[in-house]
Amino acid sequence: MSAHATAADLPDVSVLAVDIFGTTVDWRTSVAEQVAEIAGRTSAKVSPSRFTDEWRDRYLPALEAISSGTQPWRNLDALHREALDDLLDVYGVGDDFDEAARRDLVLAWHHLAPWPDVANGLTRLRRRYTVVALSNGGVALLARLIKGADLPFDCLLSAEMLQSYKPQEQAYRAAANLLTVRPEQMLMVAAHGWDIDGARRAGLRTAFLERPQERGPDRTVDRAADTTCDVAVSSLTELADVLGC
Amino acid sequence: MSAHATAADLPDVSVLAVDIFGTTVDWRTSVAEQVAEIAGRTSAKVSPSRFTDEWRDRYLPALEAISSGTQPWRNLDALHREALDDLLDVYGVGDDFDEAARRDLVLAWHHLAPWPDVANGLTRLRRRYTVVALSNGGVALLARLIKGADLPFDCLLSAEMLQSYKPQEQAYRAAANLLTVRPEQMLMVAAHGWDIDGARRAGLRTAFLERPQERGPDRTVDRAADTTCDVAVSSLTELADVLGC
Repeated sequence: MSAHATAADLPDVSVLAVDIFGTTVDWRTSVAEQVAEIAGRTSAKVSPSRFTDEWRDRYLPALEAISSGTQPWRNLDALHREALDDLLDVYGVGDDFDEAARRDLVLAWHHLAPWPDVANGLTRLRRRYTVVALSNGGVALLARLIKGADLPFDCLLSAEMLQSYKPQEQAYRAAANLLTVRPEQMLMVAAHGWDIDGARRAGLRTAFLERPQERGPDRTVDRAADTTCDVAVSSLTELADVLGC
Repeated sequence: MSAHATAADLPDVSVLAVDIFGTTVDWRTSVAEQVAEIAGRTSAKVSPSRFTDEWRDRYLPALEAISSGTQPWRNLDALHREALDDLLDVYGVGDDFDEAARRDLVLAWHHLAPWPDVANGLTRLRRRYTVVALSNGGVALLARLIKGADLPFDCLLSAEMLQSYKPQEQAYRAAANLLTVRPEQMLMVAAHGWDIDGARRAGLRTAFLERPQERGPDRTVDRAADTTCDVAVSSLTELADVLGC
């Protein structure tokens, strides 16, 4: 199917599974702001944006180490903390950040602002579909994030509940099983090729949502043109248009 | 603590865990209406209310058989189906209900009307607390029920995610763990003594919410006076008053 599918091309879809980091919320701006605030209480010199980028760079390798069985299961807060401790050492500022500061930094990922189209887009999509968050974030993180951003999801499904991280096929299949739909009745909405690819391998339908600003002005992001997907859009409101909501 | 606690007596509580069947929704009226409709398509003579009562009577024994290890794990839809098949045989009307009718009857439990105070009470309580549904219902059931009733929960936690049924202490503790709070930071809100007792044994704080109409005019229900709890109320709006929301 082309990237110009409409609701008529996806008649079986009843559930939208929406990714959170990058797709729904602008993690980079929000975390960098909190890094600036928390680092500002110390004498350490760090570039908040660069620090945030390098923190996030440790995300996919950490998931891969768990999904491959090299490392035991931990939730995303634990992975964020391990990456943070490592990064502070690399920066040579470990002594500047005490336990309380490190805890606050990890909790920065619980408070992320949504992209401007999200609240309206979700509200429209919910009229026709069951709209769930499907995220590698932990349950507490997701509950706090969604509450703080006041986003109208019908249900939060966390890798922590499923005990497997996207893009493992099991994560998508377990989500579909819990909602008692077949994989092809679920449309994965995500801004990353690895997530779209994982969902497609698991049998889901896929909507690539481009977020060109996700990684700031100096880094490239995944684009729909490089991805095999059923639908390509640049906002959740455009997805609502495409799906006739 | 007396049953007249206020928010000042519960300073550590940050999460309200709210039971669904009976506490939040009037399952008896809603299921009986759907039983009447579905049975009306057949030639079977059943009393919808009595049938619903006897169906529900099979609920706690079914949970107990799983929690005790006598039976393997199944979600609530599966337990509802087994109890239904049994009950139709007991009534001698098994031949009147084909596979489609039985599926529709099981799905009746996915569409239950909230008590009149619930939407407003939850909205007020959410201003101050993280308010989660903590239910023995399955994920699909809960997602559909909460969406259909348009209830503003922050998060749905299902026994199916936790792989243990209330009143097992593990169900309450797993919920607290997933939300990264200590058991005493969570207040269980429920209309049944067995649920309040399980929560208290797990270390949660407890609010008994009386629902005198839950079981219809001819049956008694659990009352706060017979239960050890921190707070006793007769609506979620009264709970919001008590907690200063």
